[in-house]
Amino acid sequence: MSTLFIRGGTVVNADREFKADVITQDGKIIAVGENLSAPAGATVVDAGGQYVMPGGIDPHTHMQLPFMGTVTMDDFFTGTAAGLAGGNTTIIDFVIPDPQENILDAYKKWRGWAEKSASDYSFHVAITWWSEQVRKDMGTLVNEEGVNSFKHFMAYKNAIMCDDETLVNSFKRSLELGAMPTVHAENGELVYLLQKTVSEMGIKGPEGHPLSRPPMVEAEAANRAIAIADVLNVPIYVVHVSCVEAAEAIARARARGQRVYGEVLAGHLVLDDSVYRHPDFATAAAHVMSPPFRPKGNSEFLWRGLQSGNLHTTATDHCTFCAAQKAAGKDDFTKIPNGCGGVEERLAVIWDEGVNTGRLTPSEFVAVTSANTAKLFNIYPQKGSVSVGADADLVVWDPAGTKTLSVKMQFSKGDFNIFEGRTVKGIPSHTVSQGELVYVQGDLRAVQGKGRYIKRAPFSSNFAASKLRADTLAPTAVKR
Amino acid sequence: MSTLFIRGGTVVNADREFKADVITQDGKIIAVGENLSAPAGATVVDAGGQYVMPGGIDPHTHMQLPFMGTVTMDDFFTGTAAGLAGGNTTIIDFVIPDPQENILDAYKKWRGWAEKSASDYSFHVAITWWSEQVRKDMGTLVNEEGVNSFKHFMAYKNAIMCDDETLVNSFKRSLELGAMPTVHAENGELVYLLQKTVSEMGIKGPEGHPLSRPPMVEAEAANRAIAIADVLNVPIYVVHVSCVEAAEAIARARARGQRVYGEVLAGHLVLDDSVYRHPDFATAAAHVMSPPFRPKGNSEFLWRGLQSGNLHTTATDHCTFCAAQKAAGKDDFTKIPNGCGGVEERLAVIWDEGVNTGRLTPSEFVAVTSANTAKLFNIYPQKGSVSVGADADLVVWDPAGTKTLSVKMQFSKGDFNIFEGRTVKGIPSHTVSQGELVYVQGDLRAVQGKGRYIKRAPFSSNFAASKLRADTLAPTAVKR
Amino acid sequence: MSTLFIRGGTVVNADREFKADVITQDGKIIAVGENLSAPAGATVVDAGGQYVMPGGIDPHTHMQLPFMGTVTMDDFFTGTAAGLAGGNTTIIDFVIPDPQENILDAYKKWRGWAEKSASDYSFHVAITWWSEQVRKDMGTLVNEEGVNSFKHFMAYKNAIMCDDETLVNSFKRSLELGAMPTVHAENGELVYLLQKTVSEMGIKGPEGHPLSRPPMVEAEAANRAIAIADVLNVPIYVVHVSCVEAAEAIARARARGQRVYGEVLAGHLVLDDSVYRHPDFATAAAHVMSPPFRPKGNSEFLWRGLQSGNLHTTATDHCTFCAAQKAAGKDDFTKIPNGCGGVEERLAVIWDEGVNTGRLTPSEFVAVTSANTAKLFNIYPQKGSVSVGADADLVVWDPAGTKTLSVKMQFSKGDFNIFEGRTVKGIPSHTVSQGELVYVQGDLRAVQGKGRYIKRAPFSSNFAASKLRADTLAPTAVKR
Amino acid sequence: MSTLFIRGGTVVNADREFKADVITQDGKIIAVGENLSAPAGATVVDAGGQYVMPGGIDPHTHMQLPFMGTVTMDDFFTGTAAGLAGGNTTIIDFVIPDPQENILDAYKKWRGWAEKSASDYSFHVAITWWSEQVRKDMGTLVNEEGVNSFKHFMAYKNAIMCDDETLVNSFKRSLELGAMPTVHAENGELVYLLQKTVSEMGIKGPEGHPLSRPPMVEAEAANRAIAIADVLNVPIYVVHVSCVEAAEAIARARARGQRVYGEVLAGHLVLDDSVYRHPDFATAAAHVMSPPFRPKGNSEFLWRGLQSGNLHTTATDHCTFCAAQKAAGKDDFTKIPNGCGGVEERLAVIWDEGVNTGRLTPSEFVAVTSANTAKLFNIYPQKGSVSVGADADLVVWDPAGTKTLSVKMQFSKGDFNIFEGRTVKGIPSHTVSQGELVYVQGDLRAVQGKGRYIKRAPFSSNFAASKLRADTLAPTAVKR
Repeated sequence: MSTLFIRGGTVVNADREFKADVITQDGKIIAVGENLSAPAGATVVDAGGQYVMPGGIDPHTHMQLPFMGTVTMDDFFTGTAAGLAGGNTTIIDFVIPDPQENILDAYKKWRGWAEKSASDYSFHVAITWWSEQVRKDMGTLVNEEGVNSFKHFMAYKNAIMCDDETLVNSFKRSLELGAMPTVHAENGELVYLLQKTVSEMGIKGPEGHPLSRPPMVEAEAANRAIAIADVLNVPIYVVHVSCVEAAEAIARARARGQRVYGEVLAGHLVLDDSVYRHPDFATAAAHVMSPPFRPKGNSEFLWRGLQSGNLHTTATDHCTFCAAQKAAGKDDFTKIPNGCGGVEERLAVIWDEGVNTGRLTPSEFVAVTSANTAKLFNIYPQKGSVSVGADADLVVWDPAGTKTLSVKMQFSKGDFNIFEGRTVKGIPSHTVSQGELVYVQGDLRAVQGKGRYIKRAPFSSNFAASKLRADTLAPTAVKR
Repeated sequence: MSTLFIRGGTVVNADREFKADVITQDGKIIAVGENLSAPAGATVVDAGGQYVMPGGIDPHTHMQLPFMGTVTMDDFFTGTAAGLAGGNTTIIDFVIPDPQENILDAYKKWRGWAEKSASDYSFHVAITWWSEQVRKDMGTLVNEEGVNSFKHFMAYKNAIMCDDETLVNSFKRSLELGAMPTVHAENGELVYLLQKTVSEMGIKGPEGHPLSRPPMVEAEAANRAIAIADVLNVPIYVVHVSCVEAAEAIARARARGQRVYGEVLAGHLVLDDSVYRHPDFATAAAHVMSPPFRPKGNSEFLWRGLQSGNLHTTATDHCTFCAAQKAAGKDDFTKIPNGCGGVEERLAVIWDEGVNTGRLTPSEFVAVTSANTAKLFNIYPQKGSVSVGADADLVVWDPAGTKTLSVKMQFSKGDFNIFEGRTVKGIPSHTVSQGELVYVQGDLRAVQGKGRYIKRAPFSSNFAASKLRADTLAPTAVKR
Repeated sequence: MSTLFIRGGTVVNADREFKADVITQDGKIIAVGENLSAPAGATVVDAGGQYVMPGGIDPHTHMQLPFMGTVTMDDFFTGTAAGLAGGNTTIIDFVIPDPQENILDAYKKWRGWAEKSASDYSFHVAITWWSEQVRKDMGTLVNEEGVNSFKHFMAYKNAIMCDDETLVNSFKRSLELGAMPTVHAENGELVYLLQKTVSEMGIKGPEGHPLSRPPMVEAEAANRAIAIADVLNVPIYVVHVSCVEAAEAIARARARGQRVYGEVLAGHLVLDDSVYRHPDFATAAAHVMSPPFRPKGNSEFLWRGLQSGNLHTTATDHCTFCAAQKAAGKDDFTKIPNGCGGVEERLAVIWDEGVNTGRLTPSEFVAVTSANTAKLFNIYPQKGSVSVGADADLVVWDPAGTKTLSVKMQFSKGDFNIFEGRTVKGIPSHTVSQGELVYVQGDLRAVQGKGRYIKRAPFSSNFAASKLRADTLAPTAVKR
Repeated sequence: MSTLFIRGGTVVNADREFKADVITQDGKIIAVGENLSAPAGATVVDAGGQYVMPGGIDPHTHMQLPFMGTVTMDDFFTGTAAGLAGGNTTIIDFVIPDPQENILDAYKKWRGWAEKSASDYSFHVAITWWSEQVRKDMGTLVNEEGVNSFKHFMAYKNAIMCDDETLVNSFKRSLELGAMPTVHAENGELVYLLQKTVSEMGIKGPEGHPLSRPPMVEAEAANRAIAIADVLNVPIYVVHVSCVEAAEAIARARARGQRVYGEVLAGHLVLDDSVYRHPDFATAAAHVMSPPFRPKGNSEFLWRGLQSGNLHTTATDHCTFCAAQKAAGKDDFTKIPNGCGGVEERLAVIWDEGVNTGRLTPSEFVAVTSANTAKLFNIYPQKGSVSVGADADLVVWDPAGTKTLSVKMQFSKGDFNIFEGRTVKGIPSHTVSQGELVYVQGDLRAVQGKGRYIKRAPFSSNFAASKLRADTLAPTAVKR
């Protein structure tokens, strides 16, 4: 493998920023320091006036997701390649078994699909049903396959919805195994009822989508999952927190010392629900995802969560359906496939709206786009850190560079861009994956199949929240 | 019927207190004013130095509850008679159909049992399952039988637990009918899991009971029910709120304008969970009820809820099992029948700890023991008010009278008193039911069968929370 | 005096509404009931299809306020007359002594000015400085003059601002006397600094006004006053709560059982801060008052406070300066005299935005426009109630009547109407003051000097918040 | 200077822990890695089974504090030496000018006193009054003397209390300079009034101390300082947060994105207010400090704050008065000099109650005892980090070592130990300061005068909270 010498930049880690050169060799960072000498034969990258940061980690993507006999537009190659173009060097995607499907089989299926990835990747595994076999297979996944997180969909009734019985059993099992439970928080029964109600009101278009999934539907589920985790003393990670009420549920739990973590999508940070009333069906439908974009005001609160440390990571839920696929819900918004893109734009959008506005420092940017995810899913400092010994997954960030985001210019295969027309200041000039320059100022050099599956070790006993529960009786038997 | 002239007392209503004489005739109050003349033939009650208040209404009792082939100790006669001895002139009990049981049949069964009541009574009806027939029968109950409230048990898995599907359907139906949905808020799946877990830890005694139902189990369910009610725009009443976290869920919802109401039990206001570690099994088991008594500190917060208006009513969940019945759980706390008494002591305990301490004014006492319940279940001012035209259900309250509560002195048939040994200052000197003196300074004159079933009319359209929901898109279709 | 027979309306009190006729005689209500007979000689008012409610009480007006050698446009006659035209039958105005001015002298001065009032009136007295004489005079005001509330301005540095030393002394004294302390909550030091800062930024116009008084300036002061009241165990009433953060401070305190009460202005319920950027100076300046109108979103939260019972009364801060007076701040927004009108429009605006939208029931409307104020300032049920013995101050409310509010049609002497152009549905058809018809369908019959000064008795010992403070050590000495 | 080779330990930094050897030379860490070779001549420390952590930083001490003509027992030598014995390698003490005293003069005086320090030290400077000279001198301190934090006492009326005028001016100046404002949050007017009130109740002993400073007195001041900081857009650090209500004020502010930081004292984490009712005056008085120890329940909430990241640092407020000095308040608790020790015990107490109980991971322990303080006062990673280039200030921590804390065994000169009799598990085996072993298993080798003054650079523009304030009007002038 090649040797890189990244000269004269400002290294940004989650804990601080400092002037330093960076040398990588054989896919690892081997030196970080001021006034280093270029190794013989090294490719030199001039990072003067730029930031050198750990590559982005997107903890929430759905590449090549099977859906109604077809799949999302981006497969694992095009999706991860688009990520590299945007400075994102790792994704964590999802294995989603059907109810009753063996979860190891599903896992293997997804591993096969992912072999064509251009960047490193890993998998959360969804628990969509419960049995003794599922319990056992969770152990195999954690102990042998490097899976340390399980996903639970609290919505999608009659499909992959996880009822409370499954939830409590899976959370308890996760704790035993040292794995992080994660939840998609929406109350599926309410969504089901509201979809019918909204439809009966004569609202069939995409504008019915947010009406059927109001913020309180999300807040309820978030609060429920957090309460269950609290009772069982297991940490919990809430994916795509989109509204004030859900973010407040997390903040409340954290304030009582609970280990709760929240993820925000780039889209939820900058868009609002007016998109669903767009007169053009295709445009409105292109924004259909769950949870939906929210009324103005919610985004600001999500930013505040990232600032305060009540929310921790940013993601995209990258899941690209094209207009033809979206048209399945032309006359019934409940049939519009849910999903939007973003893996390519996440870093730039968050830098522009986060760092340029003063909401976040560069170090906080690194925390919420990379380091926190690495820590929460136990791949730090291999990922998420510019330090000796870490993987050479880097982005050289040009804070003065500008770009107007558009479907016309994107590498992603989707035919829509939810950030269309947005001009951002602050873009990647170079992306380094496994020590190779895979993106250089507009030139994407992604290689199919170059990405590796990243095993994630289970958590140690430090994982659990406080062992001391002072708020109840001593959990001991009384001698009588 | 007789005529009463209650002379020289201070009338206390929820909105104010004032010096006045009160005259009742034919079961109704016919005059309230200063310096009235005694009607000819009237029985005169000297209320000098005393308060004249609307009789207590206990919105939460279980008289004659069938259980494992037996029934609770108090039937509708002894239970309501005990209530009269304590100044309580109305109860609202529960019809609890088994899953799949026709709810009208169950209702009729309970109506039959209740005919022996000594005081007026009414019924909430529990919705324990869902079908089109249940939906239809709810309409019959509201429109023909004077039921305007439905109960939902969120706990008791494999028994009467109401899942989210039933919950959302029943709440929606309640809104259509103008009926108040109420919930027993505990997450049944968590309780089920924790009961097993605690048992596996070797904890089999009553001390396992609170460990299997920690506060967050209640808070989760309360929050869930409130969120569902918010989404469906229906008011909601949470029974026996016992802990800080559940009370906070109510306060939060109220602060955003939602119409949420909370009930507190007298026991939860003054006892704590140390009772479950009592070395005597019978004593510990006698306190087993759900939600359990809570760690110290929770009671104070419940008082604050009553003071602030975030909590509204007080009740007892009167449900008396004797020691022999409780012994069914000698080796397994999950088998101890749940329930404690209190209908006889509620007013005195709340006066002593509420009014004597300065937490509540006498008017606030009337609000939380009588008037608020009457308003929330739409029988005000027939009940809950000392005013012309109201039912002559009154209590003459001696603020200087004292009594030491004890099983030895109680009228209730239970063999235990959770307030045993507590000396209260402030007791009823006379209770008037339907214009008759049914309790006079220790002399209980309750008459079996004298109580009437009280029909409660459905609520008008004012019932619903705000019709204006400014926090989302307009619920209209977009023309495309 | 005359006798009125108000026939066939729906009487609305704070606790309920019911069909009833109302008879008044000699300034008092003498009968309320169904199917009453008209007394001989009675003037008959047909209230069919209308509501009969207690006349409005505006607890916050500044009639005839001296300012820079001139006075507000409305004197006590025109201001109270305008109130009567809008259904408002009582005002509570303010005596505002200058620092070092004897407060009894100031009180007498204002009493003199108020003699020309057309409706009943009373006075809060501001405490703007502290001395032993002030302490003594507070006693005289409470015990001899019928004053039971004192006002404290936490803003207006170098003028009437009350520092913490005065605040704590006056609150303590209020508690001793059984009087309610009230506060104008804005941090005067911050306002002073921000006015300079904003001016230094080159912002001299009215748009600088809200920038110099952001919500947190109000929230800080509200929280401070509430905390001081909590520590001293005295109730507190916060005037003109205008923003989310201040309303939350009140809700938090109430949730811990503290007796805190909040007032909202009609203007804050429906306007937002965009008015200050109006291109016409006179229009922008006409809206200058403190606290200023707030960003969108705040109004909704204030409504929620009224719905939940965390906020209690509505007022106007009626204080009318004309364009010529406002022009004093043409080049410096800090010199624009603060004040807007509203005493004439309050009821209609709140009915239209409150009751017509479903936010408030008619009973809640009566609570927040009349009854709660009467209770909080201890003139209930003389005022604020349609009941036998109460003052015959009534409004007959036509829920179907409509009107477009405009300076052109108003009775108030101000030359501006902050509700200009707003069409309301729900207006008074008749106003009754002291048993006389003073407003009949557009015909204002207000009589100068007919209004009476209303003495307000001090509160009893029930006044104070909880005597029991469980959250600290016993307040007793340790024997050593 | 010497070379150290610390072999075989587990290095703990705030972001992670890992097995590594550590080499220090000339006062700096020169290598951190696995399987390093011992440099020639290096002193070898066997850290097998132990943790190697950055030395503690106590951001809140008062060594050699002048008081009533005498000084605290510990001077800068004995105090810092005691710190080294406990694993604490840096203190930040306070320069406290008298009102009207030139702050540069005061600064120089304290610098002189501190020259005898055994460990590194730095200074916060208190702003106790305001003038143009103070404003100018703050600039000198920041730009020339390495001071980047200013302290404001909101209590101590008629002494060093800082009124709101000084507060807002100093906060604004701090922002200009890139310095962190800090506050002692207690409302001095309330304390003053309550001291008189409590005394008038006949309570003269130390039990009067907490009665005169209840939690709400602290919460009010914390909230006020935070609100002022929010309005001025300057970060803020609240020292010795001791109660639920103050911690909640911080959590609320953080949840809205504000940069607020909170410090907790070791004593507040483990003691409660029952100490003030100790029958022995000397014992009760020895615990007199402000804010006082709090009712049970508060400590748990402070731990939760450290767990959640709503509180950030731990300190001691080390300020040791002996029994003779405390006796000045024998008959009047307000005259008992305020202060307790702890610099020597802080790390062990927090490890024992924090890490051993599962509340904190070792990394979180390092964060709250060292790294966070270094970051917040801008001396990271020079201090607070085990990394190449950092100062060789280390503690080798034996998690199995135990010790019973006692005044008999302490190095501090105080004659009392608030942790007396507490047995802790987890103690320092070695302390390294500037690369020298200064404490080795009970052998304290502190050297007078060896400590250095640590300059702290001002913060960059990243310092300020969000530049984007979306919650108000654009801060621009309107063209008219």
